[in-house]
Amino acid sequence: MATTAERDAMTRAIALAARGPRGVNPQVGTVILSADGATLAEGWHRGAGTPHAEVDALAKLAPGAARGATAVVTLEPCNHTGRTGPCAQALSEAGIARVVYALSDPGRDSGGGAERLRAAGVDVEAGEQSAAAEELIRDWLVAQRLGRPHVTVKWAQSLDGRAAADDGTSRWITGSPARADVHRRRAAADAIVVGTGTLLTDDPALTARDGEVLLPHQPIPVVVGARPIPADAAVLRHPHPVIAHADHDLDALLGDLRDRGIQRVFVEGGPTLASAFLAAGLADEVLAYIAPVLLGGSRLVLTDIGVGTIDAARRLVVEWLPLGDDLLAIARLTATAQEHEDHSEHEDLSEGEH
Amino acid sequence: MATTAERDAMTRAIALAARGPRGVNPQVGTVILSADGATLAEGWHRGAGTPHAEVDALAKLAPGAARGATAVVTLEPCNHTGRTGPCAQALSEAGIARVVYALSDPGRDSGGGAERLRAAGVDVEAGEQSAAAEELIRDWLVAQRLGRPHVTVKWAQSLDGRAAADDGTSRWITGSPARADVHRRRAAADAIVVGTGTLLTDDPALTARDGEVLLPHQPIPVVVGARPIPADAAVLRHPHPVIAHADHDLDALLGDLRDRGIQRVFVEGGPTLASAFLAAGLADEVLAYIAPVLLGGSRLVLTDIGVGTIDAARRLVVEWLPLGDDLLAIARLTATAQEHEDHSEHEDLSEGEH
Repeated sequence: MATTAERDAMTRAIALAARGPRGVNPQVGTVILSADGATLAEGWHRGAGTPHAEVDALAKLAPGAARGATAVVTLEPCNHTGRTGPCAQALSEAGIARVVYALSDPGRDSGGGAERLRAAGVDVEAGEQSAAAEELIRDWLVAQRLGRPHVTVKWAQSLDGRAAADDGTSRWITGSPARADVHRRRAAADAIVVGTGTLLTDDPALTARDGEVLLPHQPIPVVVGARPIPADAAVLRHPHPVIAHADHDLDALLGDLRDRGIQRVFVEGGPTLASAFLAAGLADEVLAYIAPVLLGGSRLVLTDIGVGTIDAARRLVVEWLPLGDDLLAIARLTATAQEHEDHSEHEDLSEGEH
Repeated sequence: MATTAERDAMTRAIALAARGPRGVNPQVGTVILSADGATLAEGWHRGAGTPHAEVDALAKLAPGAARGATAVVTLEPCNHTGRTGPCAQALSEAGIARVVYALSDPGRDSGGGAERLRAAGVDVEAGEQSAAAEELIRDWLVAQRLGRPHVTVKWAQSLDGRAAADDGTSRWITGSPARADVHRRRAAADAIVVGTGTLLTDDPALTARDGEVLLPHQPIPVVVGARPIPADAAVLRHPHPVIAHADHDLDALLGDLRDRGIQRVFVEGGPTLASAFLAAGLADEVLAYIAPVLLGGSRLVLTDIGVGTIDAARRLVVEWLPLGDDLLAIARLTATAQEHEDHSEHEDLSEGEH
């Protein structure tokens, strides 16, 4: 059982963790308490290549000051030598007598810290405020499990599955509540991906806005395709510089985004790109904004996604959400046996950086 | 104000009306009351070419027996000579002193009966239980307004607007709650229309069923297209004989169905037929059963519906209704200015047959 002082320290550690950046490494916070429950030091992780939260906190103490103290950490201390040494070892060597942590480390290489601590005679308590700690790094945990960023593919469509009328016109196929919803969801993503076709046709700003006002968090714009970005493209005025990918190798694209610490990707890129992500089994979620119109014609919202027969249909688990006159289908793709196999072949992303 | 006896008589008259058949003419019932409120005679209309309800009731009385009596009728007595003479005249000539009716006659030729009665010195009271009377003949009233049967176009689709996978397989794109809903709605239609393409591909029974059990009311099967119906087609075992239309002239088709007394048509006929009804502005309602799957590929749920640019999109007013894992979009088509004009050119259907 955690003491009252330890509980309060965990709440504080989670707040400290949130100061760090989203990225390749998870956000982690630490509070070091004396035996009588007083705060001796605080620390948090500031991103890949910088000290882990535990080491950041220990560094603030005089030599020997941590002897007999308790470390309260939001994530299980790592057991892995990356750019920094294992935190489990640093804590036991500093004389820490007890470790209270919230979440177990899911990493194949970095995990096992609790066991190492116990072997060194440290008292270990797991699971304190694990829900709140998990909430903070949920996207990182999902990316760990997937071996790549989480991918949401978004489109707007007519009831009959068209992205536009035959002449290419589509503004506005959906109403303002649906468009506002898109902006809110964009703001929750780390990157937003479009194809050059969409870029050249629609000249999107790829910002997350409330009306004309930019929301605090902006996804990084990513443009996929061989055609050059026009010098006057709106996306070049985005708060973040554009990441351009000339080829359509989606595995390479997601690997690059992963290495940049991107955990959530929003694909808005038009029918060709959306279909490519679905065909490759690289879409985790689909957001289909359905406008109450019929269009017919040739501008299909999806082209080919590799389904030849009905038994190969991409099954979805859908939540239907009315938005004004429109309907949002929030769809999770259920993994096929084949995809499940593919995922387990991905390398483990955890680099023991925390 | 209607008396208590007149109110009771109207309830009875509505029940009598319901004994008559749905058809070219509306269902109408009549009760003739003595001055002290006793029932003297009852009548109802048994379909085109047979006596109207008022005449049916009067015929049961001895000559002179209706003098000073009250006629309670579910619809305004007609003022038109068709295959029978005007009921307004028959009532006043029989010596009826008072007429209580529920609904006004919407017909251009048959209307004006109340005025004629009043001119003949008959006391007239309108609107008694009009809601219940309207409910009974709602479909007939709609068909009067449209100048043709009401048309519902139904299809099942993937979220991305496909009717089937690329190899044509589609069973079952939707789940059993959606399929049961289709059967319930089929049972509320007078006719069910398919193209020969669907007939040859799916061999549908075109019956309305609860599981394997036929529902009490069966829509008449109608097959549109030049290709012959195979001798072993399931539709040939339907309780009603098939109506076959070799050509795709939808106005002629609906005119023929109207002349057969069909008020509600359910079009289940596949993408070509559905698109033709929509392109012609002859769909009043769309029922789109959306399955939570993605298919991509070439089997589109609609082909071309004559929309070239987004401003010409067919706007819908949609009620979204979850059915198991599926979603039913119940969509009313909002009339464009052009369609509105087309409707007002239709001849008035009311033939004064009631």
